[in-house]
Amino acid sequence: MSEPEEQVEPLVTEIPPKAADLSAWYTAVTLKAELVSYSPVRGCVVLRPYGFGIWENLQKALDQRFKATGHENAYFPLLIPEHLLIKEAQHVEGFAPEVAWVTEGGQEKLTERLAIRPTSEVIIGVMYAKWIQSHRDLPVLINQWANVLRWEKATRPFLRTMEFLWQEGHTAHATAEEAREETLRMLEIYREVAEDVVAVPVYAGRKSAVERFPGAVETFSIEALMPDGKALQSGTSHDLGQNFSKAYDITFADIDQSVKHVYTTSWGMSWRMLGGMIMVHGDDRGLRLPPKLAPIEAVIVPIIKGSETQAVAEAHEVARTLSGQFRVRVDDRDYTPGWKFSEWEMRGVPIRIEIGPRDIQSQSVTLVRRDKAKGAPGAKETIQRSVLAQKLREELNDIQRNLYAEAKSFLESHTYVVGDRDKFFELCSSRAGMVDIPFCNRADCEANVKQKTSATTRVLRELREAAAVCVACGEPAVVQAYFAQTY
Amino acid sequence: MSEPEEQVEPLVTEIPPKAADLSAWYTAVTLKAELVSYSPVRGCVVLRPYGFGIWENLQKALDQRFKATGHENAYFPLLIPEHLLIKEAQHVEGFAPEVAWVTEGGQEKLTERLAIRPTSEVIIGVMYAKWIQSHRDLPVLINQWANVLRWEKATRPFLRTMEFLWQEGHTAHATAEEAREETLRMLEIYREVAEDVVAVPVYAGRKSAVERFPGAVETFSIEALMPDGKALQSGTSHDLGQNFSKAYDITFADIDQSVKHVYTTSWGMSWRMLGGMIMVHGDDRGLRLPPKLAPIEAVIVPIIKGSETQAVAEAHEVARTLSGQFRVRVDDRDYTPGWKFSEWEMRGVPIRIEIGPRDIQSQSVTLVRRDKAKGAPGAKETIQRSVLAQKLREELNDIQRNLYAEAKSFLESHTYVVGDRDKFFELCSSRAGMVDIPFCNRADCEANVKQKTSATTRVLRELREAAAVCVACGEPAVVQAYFAQTY
Repeated sequence: MSEPEEQVEPLVTEIPPKAADLSAWYTAVTLKAELVSYSPVRGCVVLRPYGFGIWENLQKALDQRFKATGHENAYFPLLIPEHLLIKEAQHVEGFAPEVAWVTEGGQEKLTERLAIRPTSEVIIGVMYAKWIQSHRDLPVLINQWANVLRWEKATRPFLRTMEFLWQEGHTAHATAEEAREETLRMLEIYREVAEDVVAVPVYAGRKSAVERFPGAVETFSIEALMPDGKALQSGTSHDLGQNFSKAYDITFADIDQSVKHVYTTSWGMSWRMLGGMIMVHGDDRGLRLPPKLAPIEAVIVPIIKGSETQAVAEAHEVARTLSGQFRVRVDDRDYTPGWKFSEWEMRGVPIRIEIGPRDIQSQSVTLVRRDKAKGAPGAKETIQRSVLAQKLREELNDIQRNLYAEAKSFLESHTYVVGDRDKFFELCSSRAGMVDIPFCNRADCEANVKQKTSATTRVLRELREAAAVCVACGEPAVVQAYFAQTY
Repeated sequence: MSEPEEQVEPLVTEIPPKAADLSAWYTAVTLKAELVSYSPVRGCVVLRPYGFGIWENLQKALDQRFKATGHENAYFPLLIPEHLLIKEAQHVEGFAPEVAWVTEGGQEKLTERLAIRPTSEVIIGVMYAKWIQSHRDLPVLINQWANVLRWEKATRPFLRTMEFLWQEGHTAHATAEEAREETLRMLEIYREVAEDVVAVPVYAGRKSAVERFPGAVETFSIEALMPDGKALQSGTSHDLGQNFSKAYDITFADIDQSVKHVYTTSWGMSWRMLGGMIMVHGDDRGLRLPPKLAPIEAVIVPIIKGSETQAVAEAHEVARTLSGQFRVRVDDRDYTPGWKFSEWEMRGVPIRIEIGPRDIQSQSVTLVRRDKAKGAPGAKETIQRSVLAQKLREELNDIQRNLYAEAKSFLESHTYVVGDRDKFFELCSSRAGMVDIPFCNRADCEANVKQKTSATTRVLRELREAAAVCVACGEPAVVQAYFAQTY
């Protein structure tokens, strides 16, 4: 049986405590908040409207940054003929086990198998070979929003599914230096979006050779830390050097008329980033969404006693005054206020605006922040309506900052700078967090750590102190490395 | 051999006259303007950045209207297991010949074939059956932006490709009346977008039984008229009744607790609309883009003599002042002004702003409209820079109106209200345009017309005069019908 396991969607009645079992909590939250739904297609989930609303906000944040740095969107075919896929040896070796193949179409057998794209370096490389002739055609800066498919046996919403949504940038340059600059520019955009929009702090850096993208000269990534001490790779940017341009013959006539191979890059962020966002910010009540990603920034709940309708009318009036500047929704459904409070807390809406009889009398509203614990200072406040818009903006900004600060503090308190070998292995084995050591950057040392602890290098940076030795093996260290177990 | 024909991209050196051979003109324009590129995947094209920019503007126009009418976006799996696809008999009969099948994945044979979605009624129906329990869950109003795949042998960019991009709306309602209302609401949105955004006038109405979507109770469409007298179906909206809810068991408990099947609709518009836009508006110089779809509304060309740089600096200065309100680009590349004029005319940019030595002296610019013939009144004008933004907005609005008016006039002059049988057959055979007759709406009469003339019914509307007879066969007429040959 080669199919991914059958997924039966668990019935979620309540959300279990996050600290007790992160995995059970995570599944319950993604389903109960209606971010995703399990589908009858093994290994695939449906991204429901509320989840898609979050994804759209992440898309916008990325897309505007891509465009501001000169990139344009395009769309390339889903299917890749087998004879093209196999040209870059490392690439095909890395992806072949994960490919789904179309072998029949129009009620007949095909003479050549067609791969559903696991990523698009190949088909885009083939097109670039056709489009690029001269140095005047460079750089080519293209991004694609697309679905891709990788044959996976396990399914975890956002984190690992057979089909997933992502963006993949593909660029071509005249020189190695330009390609490297582009690779790092996009890494920095990923870092900025992760930290400033998703409110998830990350470590950015380059990957070790074994963790590299198949076919890349150098891979860079951003790595976030989850509450269970495991790292989540959340965006990658690859310097592909001339590997793909040589395999797919992408050449240009330079100013001096000499014909050269271009240098290419590729970089991608997927809906996986949302999985990290959920795990980092959520609590026992459910989701906590950073305002910049929240489909609804504030929900307005009229507190109705009996058949009275004034609170509902005033809720809609308040919504009208806010609607140009904020994403707001009035919940005037036929449920109790208490039920609605839990519902929207579970769905992570950053701010709840209550309008009750006392608020109506005093032309005020009651503002409740989702990020703070019930009863904590500043969690609940009465605001005059005349200053509501201004106050709402301030509070949303503060929630965005606060979620980031909380996550940052967690990351820092779970990052261990270690000099002792035994301590290093113990921290890696116990999934303590990001373990930072001077490292020899040798594949056999890395394999030994992985075999003993399940931890791998996440990103490498410059050595903090010269002449250090590798904490894992005692050989001379050449880089500083974060080790962690990973999703 | 079941594969679509191999596509060799023709080398386009110049654009042939539109009137002489619309098909050759069309292919040349889509390639030379870099809207699309032929791919090594048979039947599939690449949507290049300039083409994608147009598509993005169409997407925005649709998406904001969908959201304003209460719809939300979501994403459903690409692959559909065979046992699910075959449940709605008419639907599978209609689509089975066009399906591509995945039969291998993860290096093993699958036990069940997976279809690449030709459309998503099936997978969405299965999910709705899971999500919908009560009348409180209704209506469900969801749209999906997606790639779909239909096994086609011929390839014409935008008009007919194996894989294409589209949106597909899928809704569920408690009553037949609501579902019908929704179907017509979305038809009206398509009409409005076609006419007000794409500047292509259409006839909207319902389809005859033979032209209906497989599985629909009633299909409605908008139909545009191409310069060769053939109609282009440009958007469809289907009232699916309870056909899919019965096949996929989508039920709800009504207010009285009785369990009922929901009523569903689906509606779609694809990048095909862009094919219509190209054919309707283009001329011998290339594309003419309606401003609302144009990725670049105005291109600014500095007229440089020798090494002088002031015109370039002023071009950028003008661009800066316009950039918040308009999509503008400065073309400061190392080509002659004449070359640039042809290039941007060919690419259909609505307005060219020239800045030459005389313009600099008088603080003016020269504004050239793409929609008017060279030398025509109003085609070229000198504008003071102080009023440029205002004038540009007026001219863009006027171009939008003018392209629509030209197309409307063509449609009207090629619509024939006919009472004579011979004349009717002759107009249909000669591809004269939209041929409007009272029609019996019998399948055998329609088949007879099709067999004799290649024309089919495009849309049906209410009979203009009671007690009319069918012009095609002499039987009593029940509807008014537009006949035309079609893409």
